Order: sequence, then C-alpha cells, then structure tokens
Amino acid sequence: MFETAKIGRTLSKAAYKAEEEELRTELLEAQIALREREIPVYVIIAGMEGAGKGEVVNALDEWLDARGMHIYAFWEETDEEKHRPQAWRFWRAMPRRGEIGVFFGGWYLSPIEQRFTGRWSDADLDQSMRGIRELERMLIHDGAVIVKCWYHFSEKEQRRRLKALERNDRSRWKMMPKKSKFSEQYQRFEAAAAQVVRRTDIGRAPWHIIEAADPRYRNMTTGRVLLREIQDALATAQHEDAAEAAPSSTDWDMLPQAPEARITLIDRVDLTQTIGKRDYRKRLADLQTELNELAWRAYAHKISTVFVFEGVDAAGKGGAIRRITQAVDARLREVISIAAPTDEERAHHYLWRFWRHLPRGGRMTIFDRSWYGRVLVERVEGFTSHDSWARAYLEINDFEEQLVQAGVVVQKFWLQISKEEQLARFKAREDTPYKRYKITDEDWRNREKWDEYREAVNEMLARTSVRHAPWNLIAGNDKKFARIQVLETITDALRDALKGRA
Amino acid sequence: MFETAKIGRTLSKAAYKAEEEELRTELLEAQIALREREIPVYVIIAGMEGAGKGEVVNALDEWLDARGMHIYAFWEETDEEKHRPQAWRFWRAMPRRGEIGVFFGGWYLSPIEQRFTGRWSDADLDQSMRGIRELERMLIHDGAVIVKCWYHFSEKEQRRRLKALERNDRSRWKMMPKKSKFSEQYQRFEAAAAQVVRRTDIGRAPWHIIEAADPRYRNMTTGRVLLREIQDALATAQHEDAAEAAPSSTDWDMLPQAPEARITLIDRVDLTQTIGKRDYRKRLADLQTELNELAWRAYAHKISTVFVFEGVDAAGKGGAIRRITQAVDARLREVISIAAPTDEERAHHYLWRFWRHLPRGGRMTIFDRSWYGRVLVERVEGFTSHDSWARAYLEINDFEEQLVQAGVVVQKFWLQISKEEQLARFKAREDTPYKRYKITDEDWRNREKWDEYREAVNEMLARTSVRHAPWNLIAGNDKKFARIQVLETITDALRDALKGRA
Repeated sequence: MFETAKIGRTLSKAAYKAEEEELRTELLEAQIALREREIPVYVIIAGMEGAGKGEVVNALDEWLDARGMHIYAFWEETDEEKHRPQAWRFWRAMPRRGEIGVFFGGWYLSPIEQRFTGRWSDADLDQSMRGIRELERMLIHDGAVIVKCWYHFSEKEQRRRLKALERNDRSRWKMMPKKSKFSEQYQRFEAAAAQVVRRTDIGRAPWHIIEAADPRYRNMTTGRVLLREIQDALATAQHEDAAEAAPSSTDWDMLPQAPEARITLIDRVDLTQTIGKRDYRKRLADLQTELNELAWRAYAHKISTVFVFEGVDAAGKGGAIRRITQAVDARLREVISIAAPTDEERAHHYLWRFWRHLPRGGRMTIFDRSWYGRVLVERVEGFTSHDSWARAYLEINDFEEQLVQAGVVVQKFWLQISKEEQLARFKAREDTPYKRYKITDEDWRNREKWDEYREAVNEMLARTSVRHAPWNLIAGNDKKFARIQVLETITDALRDALKGRA
Repeated sequence: MFETAKIGRTLSKAAYKAEEEELRTELLEAQIALREREIPVYVIIAGMEGAGKGEVVNALDEWLDARGMHIYAFWEETDEEKHRPQAWRFWRAMPRRGEIGVFFGGWYLSPIEQRFTGRWSDADLDQSMRGIRELERMLIHDGAVIVKCWYHFSEKEQRRRLKALERNDRSRWKMMPKKSKFSEQYQRFEAAAAQVVRRTDIGRAPWHIIEAADPRYRNMTTGRVLLREIQDALATAQHEDAAEAAPSSTDWDMLPQAPEARITLIDRVDLTQTIGKRDYRKRLADLQTELNELAWRAYAHKISTVFVFEGVDAAGKGGAIRRITQAVDARLREVISIAAPTDEERAHHYLWRFWRHLPRGGRMTIFDRSWYGRVLVERVEGFTSHDSWARAYLEINDFEEQLVQAGVVVQKFWLQISKEEQLARFKAREDTPYKRYKITDEDWRNREKWDEYREAVNEMLARTSVRHAPWNLIAGNDKKFARIQVLETITDALRDALKGRA
C-alpha cells in the first residue's frame, strides 16, 4: 500500500518555482468557479507523524483565497463534544457549499489511533470504516468533493525527522523509543493505516498516497491533486449528462511535471540483476523439490493458494509459471490463462470469471493474467469507463480479502523487463519459427502504449499491494533470475502458511 | 420495521383474478425487454419461517417465461462450497445479463440464522452486512436490478401457520416450542431480521416488506413489486440522461389496486379513543410530576433525550409539546421548530441543521418537525429528487443509530387526526382571532395532498421504525387523549433508560 511513498521522489527548487505560479493561478480560478457552482470541498490531510502535515496546510493556506477556506483541527475532544455522538464534531465543521474545508486528520485520526494502541479490534475498526464510507458517500451524493491525502515515508526517514523534531523541542514525542521498539511501532502504525486506507479507498473519493520525504514534492503534489480533483468536479457539474462528465484525471496527471517527481516503483526495480547458470540449476532443483513437498503438505492441510501473474508482454510469465507447474503434481494445480472474455463471461460481472476458478481446499490456482485486466488493459485501451476502473481497486481489494479470510494464500507477481529487452525478445520471437505464434500485432501496439501502461501499473501497485496479498516486483531481464525470485517467494509463502503444522 | 406487515392487508379472489391477467402480460413484456437491454435481475425472497416463500417462487415461476429465469436455493453448504470463500456459492449462481435469478433467502439467510442462534455478535453481523452492501452496490454499478422482498406476519399468525404445517408433517419444525418459548423465539428472530433489513435498505435496492398472512395479497404484491422495479430499470436504461431516468415508482405504486390491499398503519389507528376531563387532569398532573423528576435524574446521569414530533397539520403537536415543556425545567430542554431552511442551512447537507441542535449530556431536545421532512414534505412537494429521498431512509436510520449508540434516548411521534377533524380545526382557527396566524394557504394546499402524504407517511413508518428509535402513532382526534399518550410514552422511555440507577 505505501510502497509508492518510499520511492524517493523529489522536486528541485527550480522546478518547484516554475510550477508554483501556474498552480496558484489555476487554484484560485478553480476556487472562484467552485463558489459559483456551490460545490463544497473537503480536503483531508492525514498521514504519519512528522510528515509535515502542518506545512502542507500552510502551503494551501498561502495558495488559496482565505475567504473561501476553513481549517479544522481535531485535537482532544472538548467537553461539548464528549457529551454528544462522535460524529458531532465533524458535522459542526462542515464547509458550506462553495467553500473548502481543510481537515487535519479528519475523521481518520481517531480510528487509526484506537487501532494502533490496540484499544480497538479489527472488527471495531471495520465497523468504524463502514460508518466513514457511508458518511463520505452521503456527502458525495449531496454534491461534495472529498480529497483525501495520505503522507507517508520510510521508517528511516521518519526516524530522522522525529530526531530533528526532538532537537527543536517542538515535538509531542518527547522521548524517542529505542530502535527496535521504534521499528515495531512504525510497522504497527503502518499496518493500522493500511487497513484504514484500503477500506475507505472508494472510487469517487480515492486516497492519494503522497511521499512526504521531500517537502517541495509533497506540497506541489498536494496542490496538483487538489486542483485536478476540483477541475474534475467542475467538469462534472457543468455537464447535464453525467456519463460524459465522468472524472478524467488519473493519479499520474496529479504529479508535478518534473521527471524527478515522476519516478515509479517499476523504475526502482534493478533490472541488471542476474544469476549464473550453475547457481541457477542448483537453486532451481532445490526450490522445485521443496515446492513439491510444500504443495502436498498444503493439500493435506487444506490450504489453498492463488498466484497471480501479470507483466509486460514477453516478460517471461509463461516460463516462470512452467517452473512452478513442473514442480507441483498435476492433480493439485490448475493454470487459468485469461484472454478476452467469452460470451458467457461477458454476460456477468467482470469478477465472475475469476470466482469460477477459485481452488477448492488444498489446491493451487495460477492465474496467467487476471482480474487486474480491468485496471490495466481495460483502462489503457478504454474498454471500460473511468468510473468503472476507479471503482475496481476497492472491488479487487474486497475480493482478495475474502480469499484471505477463507484461508487462501495469495501472492501476486509483476514481471518487469526494460523496453530494449522487450524489443530484443519480440525480434527473437519473430526469428524463431516455433515462437512466432507468440507475437502478434497487438503486442506491437501495446508496446507503443508503454508509458500509459507504466502509469496504470504504478497506480495498481499503489492501491492493491496489501500485506496479506502483496505484489512482488520481479526483475525479468534475466529470465533465470526472475524464475528463482518467483519460486523463492512462493516457497516462502507456503512455508509461512504451514508453519507449526505437521 | 415490520409493523407494516401486521396491518391485515388482504386481496379478494375477485380482485386477484382481475389483476392477475394484466400483471402476467406486463411481466412477460418486461421480461422480453429485459433480455433485449441485457439487464440482469436478482430477486431475493426472504422472510419468516412459514411465510410461504416457496409459494411465492412458484407463482413467479408460473408468471414468467422459464427460459429467462433461474431459481436458486441455498440449503446446506456442499463440500465444494465449504472449501471456498463464503461468497463463492453466490457467484456460481449469478444470473446472466438479461435473465432473472430468483434467490431463496439469497445472501441473507445465513447471517440472520447466525445472529438468531447467537453464534454471531452484533459486530459480526455488522461486518457481514457491510460485505453485502458492497456486493449489491457492485452489482448495481454493473447494471443489475436487485429486488428484495421480505415476508412477515404477526406472532399469532406464524404460530397458526406452523401448527398447520406440523399437522401436514411437511415442516422442518417437527416440534412446536411452548407458547412462551415461541414468543421469545419470534421476537429474537424479528430483532435479528430488523438489524439485517435496516442495514441493507439501500436507496437503489430497498427492501419491500410484504405482509404474508393473505396468500393472494402476498403473491400479487410480489408480482407488482417485481414488475415496477423492472419497468423503472428499463426506463433508466433507455434514457441517456441519468437524471431524467431516475426511478419513479413508490412503495405505494407497487401495491395491488384493490382497496383492501392498501390499508395503511394509519388507517389502523383508532381515532375514536377519548379520555374524560377529570381523568385527564389527574393523569396529566401525575405524569408531569413524574416527568419533572425523571428529567432531573436523566440530567444527573447524563442521559440525553431526543423527541421528534411529526403529524398532519393541526394535529396538535404544539399542544402536546407544551405539556412536556411545562413539566421540564427550562435549563434542561430545548424545542427546535423546523421550518424552511435558512441560507446557511441550505448551504449544507440536509442533516447538518439537525446535528447542530443535538443535546449535550443529560439534556432534552424536542424537534417540532424534523429530518423526516426529507421523506415527507420534500418528497410530496417534489423539493428533492426521488433518488435523494429514497436514499434518505438509510441516512436517517444511520443518523439515529449514532444517537442511540451515544446513549441518547430517541422517541418519535406521529400525530394523526381524521380529515374531518382537520377541517373542523382549520375552520375553528380561522374563526378565533388569536389562532388565525396558525393557519395559512399552505395548510389548505397540504390538505389537498392528503393521500400523497398518507403514502409517504406509511413508507416512512415502514422504513424507519426501529426498536431503539420507534415511531409512536398517536390518535389525535381527542387532544387530551393524545397528550396523555405522548407523556406516557416519554415517561416510560425515561424510566426504562434510568432503570437500575439511583
């Protein structure tokens, strides 16, 4: 979930200067239009301790016209508030139509704290998130725009920041915990935050996960997110025809223009990694032997597994999958290759075709392409509306959560190769008679959309990588290296699931 | 919630015959149109044991073209199903686009059973309902129509039926429990069902609570509900402009045409009830004395109260409220009269103005008219869209649930008088100088819409009367009798809330 906030995105001083003036002008224009159209805007500023949420609010305060903007912070409950239902404090603070309300933490602060401190169980948190979802949907139905920003960074960065704050003595964290304790706290907080973010990442009010390490990147991204969300809302409000007016901005559009601000997780995959031939043979044999045994044990304990393979064309999905099927008894596993839907599949909800193929107790299903098609090919090719794919992240997270709750082990693989490597493989396929069938005009067309896929992949990773069903980014330029990575991940996951069992 | 299923609605044989032919023709036409527009329809048949759900399904089977209809029953889980996530069995049974799937119990059967038997806590149920809401919203986003019917009747009727079933030896209830035990079971089942229905009564897939005592009424209503829901969906699908195509049928439209099938809860209020002058004085003095003391004790224990007064014009709300305020110290209570919203109120969500006035710990707020304006005057006068008021039932139930969860005592009063009595009071007001200000042209206009208000009131009572925030129907033709009823209800509620406290 928060991997995209640990990429190391920055924004140079020069680029910031260059973009700021235009942003301010556009923001003010948007604010005037908002007032005219009487659209209320809720901006929720939430995230890690020390991420600079206060500075973000200050930047917004500077950029926007103060007459149409209100800032609300929810610290300790007042007496007035304590004696009323919890939501009362928020209802007191609702912005008027045409105004922008900036909420420090919003209705998210207390639930995360309650979960983090262990006062709330998962079920308590769930119930609270259900309430928040209803509240937000209710406001959206009433014409509101809700912009939710989550500020995050790595453990190392947070540690550095909090130390600095400590020196300045402006912090509420007077005592830094010991390193191991700090680590444990960081992870516990992140887990609670991930639950909250995942459960409230609704299509019409998605979370924007913003890397907070670089203040210029952080502030500029916030400004652009707010601008784009308002512009989309204005476009919708101006059209009588709702279908035509669906939102058009993507996460990618909301990033600053400078290249250093647009690095993706995929760019961070080290594609130069390789493995020697002899090492490969040895590791492969070991891993396949172990996998065979693990698969039988999983069968005995009725632990089902679902493995999802996605990746750019010619990234080596087939080869990686074959190394699994070689090792697992044919009675225990099934490979489902997802191509264009059949008539029957088209006649149902898009998730229906995947539900059909779920493994029963103790079996393994390997999806060669999957439900992620909705937010990849269907999005990029325009086969489905913006609303549909924006809504799909939550639907997919819910779906996978149901699998995990039923005890299924879920691992997802994204196989990445460089653009040059893809070209080389395409050419090799064309030159090899028995591989020629594998390359089609469509592959070449997809290749032209390399950048659009990159954006879609990045958003997919950001919104659907969760602890219980993680994405594994596999460096695929060396096929052998990739296969070993996949097998290692799978055996680790199965070993974990079988821990403590006979 | 289920009061509307205990009214005693029937349908004569003649009326049934007369309506059936038209219904069948229209249903078949609708089914053909469905197929052309590729709209999938989910019909969920749920309700009390012995309510004749099977007979309803048989009727639908007879009326509809079997080629486009599938019936799914979910009895015991099969082995195949047990080893997969819970929702898998439902995903297997989804109707294709253009087809009608009839689900016995649907996804509601198991949650109600789990709660009824006590294996699930409230929180478990809540979590499950959250999942169902997401599932249904997902299907609706995908173009589906979900028609949810709940069959219900009184305890006496159920007892009679189950006995008959027992004699026929076709029942699963081989042994009838003893009467007191039966009562307890009936109430526990009803409570679990009410939780489920309330939490999943979403605007786009509302529950239809159908009185099941009379088989003809039950079947005909089901057929008409299905027909109207499909017709609405077809109208929506044919319009490009979603706003113009919003659903137009109301609960009322879905009832059979015969008068005996259209009796409302209000018709069942015995308006002839009166109280003698001497009795009135005595009771009034006793109740006001007790109320005064109870209000102080509630203050001491920080138990807040919210009382809602709605009713037809000139039903005597003001007089009833005055009898409360006379008894309660002015520092402890506030009367909020709701008229047309102010500019500031109009600039917020419609619930905002009510949140503002919630009492703090230990106080009493009396709303003279309330948030129910959205589903009464705003609905009848067309001040808000069909979608908005249809959505409002859930919003209102959520709102009141938040009050109750915060420990607030909530009681709602509907004051009813006959149309003749209203006319007499209007005339009396016009003839009395100091009362003339109370009567306006609007009152006369509202009077012309007597029947529309009756329908709106009936639906409001059906959808928002819940155990923790019940509606009390007050017979208002005799003002004194009405006031005593109100005071008795309020003192009972406060006494209950204070039970076991000093």
